[in-house]
Amino acid sequence: MKSFVYYNPTKIIFGEGAIGKLASELKNCGDNVLLAYGKGAIKREGIYDAVIKILADSGKKVTELPGIMPNPTAAKAREGIDLCKRNKVDFILAVGGGSVIDCCKAIAVGALIKEDFWDVLYTKRKLAGKALPIGTVLTMVGTGSEMNGNAVITNEEIKIKAGFYSPAVFPKFSILDPTYTYSLPTYQMVSGICDIMSHLMEQYFSGKDDNVSDDLNEALMKSIIKNTRVAVKKPQDYTARSNIMWGSTVTLNDTVGVGKTQDWEVHQIEHQLGAYYDCAHGMGLAAVSASYYRHVYKNGLHKFRQFAVNVWGVDPKGRTSDEVALEGIARLEAFFREIGATTSLRELGIPDKSKLGEIAESTNLLKAGFKTLTHEDVKNILEASF
Amino acid sequence: MKSFVYYNPTKIIFGEGAIGKLASELKNCGDNVLLAYGKGAIKREGIYDAVIKILADSGKKVTELPGIMPNPTAAKAREGIDLCKRNKVDFILAVGGGSVIDCCKAIAVGALIKEDFWDVLYTKRKLAGKALPIGTVLTMVGTGSEMNGNAVITNEEIKIKAGFYSPAVFPKFSILDPTYTYSLPTYQMVSGICDIMSHLMEQYFSGKDDNVSDDLNEALMKSIIKNTRVAVKKPQDYTARSNIMWGSTVTLNDTVGVGKTQDWEVHQIEHQLGAYYDCAHGMGLAAVSASYYRHVYKNGLHKFRQFAVNVWGVDPKGRTSDEVALEGIARLEAFFREIGATTSLRELGIPDKSKLGEIAESTNLLKAGFKTLTHEDVKNILEASF
Repeated sequence: MKSFVYYNPTKIIFGEGAIGKLASELKNCGDNVLLAYGKGAIKREGIYDAVIKILADSGKKVTELPGIMPNPTAAKAREGIDLCKRNKVDFILAVGGGSVIDCCKAIAVGALIKEDFWDVLYTKRKLAGKALPIGTVLTMVGTGSEMNGNAVITNEEIKIKAGFYSPAVFPKFSILDPTYTYSLPTYQMVSGICDIMSHLMEQYFSGKDDNVSDDLNEALMKSIIKNTRVAVKKPQDYTARSNIMWGSTVTLNDTVGVGKTQDWEVHQIEHQLGAYYDCAHGMGLAAVSASYYRHVYKNGLHKFRQFAVNVWGVDPKGRTSDEVALEGIARLEAFFREIGATTSLRELGIPDKSKLGEIAESTNLLKAGFKTLTHEDVKNILEASF
Repeated sequence: MKSFVYYNPTKIIFGEGAIGKLASELKNCGDNVLLAYGKGAIKREGIYDAVIKILADSGKKVTELPGIMPNPTAAKAREGIDLCKRNKVDFILAVGGGSVIDCCKAIAVGALIKEDFWDVLYTKRKLAGKALPIGTVLTMVGTGSEMNGNAVITNEEIKIKAGFYSPAVFPKFSILDPTYTYSLPTYQMVSGICDIMSHLMEQYFSGKDDNVSDDLNEALMKSIIKNTRVAVKKPQDYTARSNIMWGSTVTLNDTVGVGKTQDWEVHQIEHQLGAYYDCAHGMGLAAVSASYYRHVYKNGLHKFRQFAVNVWGVDPKGRTSDEVALEGIARLEAFFREIGATTSLRELGIPDKSKLGEIAESTNLLKAGFKTLTHEDVKNILEASF
């Protein structure tokens, strides 16, 4: 097991009606609140009205930042930073899914520095040491942003979608009510679930050590698979929805990531698909995952075999490790298809292969997975995903 | 899934040589340090010398509290409280296992109040709102105290061993070096492992909900079983030792406890065994676990069947649920025996049954497991464990 530091100070308030505890959390927060949200989720389930009332009853001065888009842009973050500076905001309440929360994390950092946030966090790759405090009310699951220090922003001018990390942007609290996800459109729900599965696999498919993080990871994968099969048929099944919601959070709060190397190359590829085609993040991941894993599995054969047997219940008797491993990847692809995810770039809405070379060239190569890729490899993976 | 609040702000510094990061952590802590430790563990592996040097180099004024015993007593905690008050201690460094850390948690609370800590925390059952900050250097695994707000103290005068919880006593940081456990005497190592297994089962054997916490729990149980089998044969296997150490911490940092009811009756019974016979905590748990589970399994048949199949690999084909469930409990008992744990009260060193009635009568009945016990039930379980 590799050495690590684990620190996660986010307080989670979980359950139906958890919004009832927002008022007591706000007592410890600043009085000039930026209320940030997306394009629709907050209006479902009466969330907007409930939050506005609690903020008013708590005596907060509210500045609203509506309209944060999926794949939140640097321009949108700059809009929020400007609002914070002009209105002396001292607390950010993010109501939405990962896009809203991620955008708020960039705003939280940018609001406290004179320089442009992109220059500091991305161009200079500096670690942000301070940020405005953030609280979140989660309306969509998948990114895990509600309980970590990560954010992903798309710089639309230079076509780069990239992440940053800072311990300063862990939310102070996150309110997770599984019933808020009941009315989520199926496409978004499935996209979020593909994102969760990809987060698990990105952490799983790297390293040679026998690691308790991977044992926990397999348990999460099986739980997500089992509960997703219920939720796609019965969207209002509370048990399924709550297991998916909490499972999604645990997936990316470092519990299954510590003590091992991690891959994250599928996310790098998808980030550039997103930067070029603005596709739904989870669907983009689903579209390239199987091709990527078929491309690299021989370099991590033991782990892909283990994945097939332990996660998908593939019977290894009388079969080679290659056959077992490929069967595991096929089961993953079949699962994505079963729940309505896109399993090719064409299904994702990409019209032709004309930009695949450019996307491959612009993809960040992390070199942390079982196989070290070249841009040529990425192009081959993208073509195999078409 | 039940509603819950999850909050765990302890920073974990994990890995061989992690003590090298103690100095930087101490920069954020007070200058009057109570250095608390037990009866021997700190002298192994050069830990004492290393810690003393780092404290001196950091310019700290050190007051030592040596000799904290297993099953730490209220009297020992009072000794530490007195030291803190007289020397204006503003930070406690606990170096040892759960007993040392638990004792320090009681000291941390008691040092900031005028009343006696036992009166406040136990007699009046008040929640401590403040405590001196604590850091830990872990030398033995099992209790999970390095990453939670729990502590167990034995009041030797009235023969009560009982726990308290306060969010104020979460350690600020905990340093976990798996190599510190290499030279742990086998008896202590095995006792700690029985404690971990019991912590997992106490959280697992309650509730009817299909819960991701239980899925994660099964993964931890399997990891502990697998790695213990390696560690008892090869005590210096770093992979096994690190999986056990981190697995032990995750077991009791709420990851597998949230969103469900929990049992904890085996711990209640063992606490009174400890109060009467000062036995090793984990060994006491191992001695009563199988009898307890045989006594209650019919009331949670589905879960005991699941435990047998998922954790122990029992093949359910052609067998009744009762048979499968009992086979799982038998496998647990066989595992305890295999690793050298005590599986009866007689092996634990209890000479005769004369005090079992008294122990049963003094046992706290939590009524949170599958079956609500009476004191008569506890007596029957103790007799079946003899």
